[in-house]
Amino acid sequence: MGAGTDAEAGDNRRLEDLITALSNLLGDRVTTSAPVRDAHGRDESWHKTHPPDAVVFPESTEEIIEITRLCAARKIPMIPFGVGTSLEGHVAALQGGISIDTSRLNKIIQVNAEDMDVRVEPGVRRKQLNEHLRDTGLFFPVDPGADATIGGMAATRASGTNAVRYGTMRENVLSLSVVLSDGRLIRTSSRARKSAAGYDLTRLFVGSEGTLGVIVEITLRLYGIPEAISAAVCPFPSVDAAVNSCIQIIQSGIPVARVELIDQLQAEALNKYSNTDFPVAPVLFFEFHGTEAGVLEQVALTQAITEDHGGLDFQWANRPEDRNKLWQARHDAHYANVAARPGCRGWPTDVCVPISRLAECIAETNADIAQSGLFAPIVGHVGDGNFHVDFVLDPDDPREVKEAGRLNDRLVARALAMDGTCTGEHGVGFGKIDYLRDEHGDGLDLMRDLKRSFDPHNLMNPGKIFGPDLP
Amino acid sequence: MGAGTDAEAGDNRRLEDLITALSNLLGDRVTTSAPVRDAHGRDESWHKTHPPDAVVFPESTEEIIEITRLCAARKIPMIPFGVGTSLEGHVAALQGGISIDTSRLNKIIQVNAEDMDVRVEPGVRRKQLNEHLRDTGLFFPVDPGADATIGGMAATRASGTNAVRYGTMRENVLSLSVVLSDGRLIRTSSRARKSAAGYDLTRLFVGSEGTLGVIVEITLRLYGIPEAISAAVCPFPSVDAAVNSCIQIIQSGIPVARVELIDQLQAEALNKYSNTDFPVAPVLFFEFHGTEAGVLEQVALTQAITEDHGGLDFQWANRPEDRNKLWQARHDAHYANVAARPGCRGWPTDVCVPISRLAECIAETNADIAQSGLFAPIVGHVGDGNFHVDFVLDPDDPREVKEAGRLNDRLVARALAMDGTCTGEHGVGFGKIDYLRDEHGDGLDLMRDLKRSFDPHNLMNPGKIFGPDLP
Repeated sequence: MGAGTDAEAGDNRRLEDLITALSNLLGDRVTTSAPVRDAHGRDESWHKTHPPDAVVFPESTEEIIEITRLCAARKIPMIPFGVGTSLEGHVAALQGGISIDTSRLNKIIQVNAEDMDVRVEPGVRRKQLNEHLRDTGLFFPVDPGADATIGGMAATRASGTNAVRYGTMRENVLSLSVVLSDGRLIRTSSRARKSAAGYDLTRLFVGSEGTLGVIVEITLRLYGIPEAISAAVCPFPSVDAAVNSCIQIIQSGIPVARVELIDQLQAEALNKYSNTDFPVAPVLFFEFHGTEAGVLEQVALTQAITEDHGGLDFQWANRPEDRNKLWQARHDAHYANVAARPGCRGWPTDVCVPISRLAECIAETNADIAQSGLFAPIVGHVGDGNFHVDFVLDPDDPREVKEAGRLNDRLVARALAMDGTCTGEHGVGFGKIDYLRDEHGDGLDLMRDLKRSFDPHNLMNPGKIFGPDLP
Repeated sequence: MGAGTDAEAGDNRRLEDLITALSNLLGDRVTTSAPVRDAHGRDESWHKTHPPDAVVFPESTEEIIEITRLCAARKIPMIPFGVGTSLEGHVAALQGGISIDTSRLNKIIQVNAEDMDVRVEPGVRRKQLNEHLRDTGLFFPVDPGADATIGGMAATRASGTNAVRYGTMRENVLSLSVVLSDGRLIRTSSRARKSAAGYDLTRLFVGSEGTLGVIVEITLRLYGIPEAISAAVCPFPSVDAAVNSCIQIIQSGIPVARVELIDQLQAEALNKYSNTDFPVAPVLFFEFHGTEAGVLEQVALTQAITEDHGGLDFQWANRPEDRNKLWQARHDAHYANVAARPGCRGWPTDVCVPISRLAECIAETNADIAQSGLFAPIVGHVGDGNFHVDFVLDPDDPREVKEAGRLNDRLVARALAMDGTCTGEHGVGFGKIDYLRDEHGDGLDLMRDLKRSFDPHNLMNPGKIFGPDLP
């Protein structure tokens, strides 16, 4: 409105100049169209859209290097973008800038079947990868539910249902190639399974949410598709009974591949949305991987435990199509919840605690929810001590919004008091920044030092993890 | 030697002043005695002794904080010290300074059996920990052979025989408390099994070799002691046949707990030193963990593979005392080699490559050794693609020393060309600094930036990983 300041005019000139330079580089793979910008300024979360000034669609590492150089020369922010399935506003262009959409970098570069690893470009999606691998007898287990890009999953340290057995992206990324804010290209490590050659740059970039550089290649560990897979659903008389069964299963060392909790509200929402017939009760979903004999043994040990907690009625899904239906329903939990209250939006939050505190943490959280009157189903990757509360809110009702915020604050404080974390897998984005000082203390200053050291002008996804006041 | 320069005189005054301040703090837990300084200036490696100016024996985190403040105020280097079992000169006081011996910080603070984790002080030793845990039914699997301290193991990212099944310190440290060079105390994370709350400081300090801070507390993952454990030794007609068996076992997904190679030279040396009767041939040592039925199944699958490679004669060690003898012998490999050439010293080096290249890498290395005439047995954690060459040298024969250096250079170059690493587990210390640029390229500059950012005056174990030219 009006002429603006000299500084604003300078900003605008720099931006125009950048977009011209990007167009020279990329032709029509640069856009400032409002719908595309909007689509790149939001993820699947509750958080408000913050569109970037432009979106670019590079097709090679060399183009990404050139893009970062052009942006850096003009001090314009860069936001790496996968497919927008994050949940804490990770891709929002809080300070404007250029969204670097990696979807065209979607080649599976090399399957090293003998080494059980694979090199992929960042825009490769999870389902695409497993489809491609099928004939090799190998698979990539990390499964956050959404059909996310591998680059995005590495950037957010994604995990999900299989993490209890196979680990998260932390354990399953062997190496990354990253373009830094000044255009330097580095590779964080070799393909060796282990190394003691200097600092662990791989783990440093995994979970850095695009704030340290643009991931342009990922090497992942793969696993043999198990000889036998069995999945089952089992209802329990209470959330407590379900959670305590899970705790005992983990403590017994049964190598369960998945153990997922949904509460009664979630079961109802899923039955309606996904046309399933889950028991309307707190339910555990299980999956067992192994040899035929090994799976039978795991099942017998598990059932001996669940029976003690009133979990008697296992419904088995042994055919691949039945298993797929079961897990698709589990993954659709968030969509089912939003559909259950038309016109509302979902605010999924997550915490993770030591498993000995999990039943208590969920019980206290449930008491909060009941007392608030909010609609907020609970689902959990309970084998890891990780669970989600999915607040489904009328965005125009300030009371509901405020109450969800209050419960989220209490949930995080509860998890931290139990020596847990404010987020097990969704990450910080700009939704959980305020909790990091409580969680990390002076460690947060080390993270800030590190960010300044790698990205001195704060050009990489600014405003995430640390808030707006960097450097 | 003469009056020295003014700068030297100033250095001496600062050092004297520091030792006075440390004595005020610690009483007789500061020493400048030559034998103690010498013992803290060397590890188990070939590398020359570099004694610190003094050694301190703190008994609390608070004392370590105060020590770092006193050293930092006078810009005197600090070298964290566990028990000195490192292999690349990690504890050498290359620029003088104060060795911080953590051996009196040896309390097991808290066993959280329900969460399968444990908090320990850094001076706790591996065997002490497992002894303490025995009654809980839990154990800590990482086993580098030496009875190292947990602090030292975290600092060097140790691994060893069990890593193929249970991972290295990278996967098994849940959280660290660290005193930084300026005396700040940070905790890298909560006890939650996973977290997406900011940068992974835990993995950054694991493997940082004392160059970023002093580790003062470690939280470790624990595992249930398996219901059944079986170990066996099996000879093969050639190193190639043994390695190819191992590759196929890993690729088949058999969850073998240990699979170790020793070559014929090593078998001979062990039989003499440890009074064992291993077959004088390339040998694989196996250990299987699981339920009774699970172990039988793993053994059957493994034997089907080894038979195809001429590995027929399994000698079983199923009683705990027999297994202990077997693994003690394996761990004594280095001592056995040194004993085989009286008056000589051992120079154990290690590399790690993708497993598909392992047979080739070992074969080419063996050809080098044969051609050189050096005595250099090979042992390997072959399930990870990791192996060691143990050069045993007459330190007074410059031809032998030079030839070992040349072979080491060729070994590292070979491993890097195969997309491997210059060290799988021994670390960099000051012995492998020259290889890091080839391995990491510009990534090494990121590591240097990170070091400068955390330790701007280069006071923490200076000269390691990066060489003398920092900051």
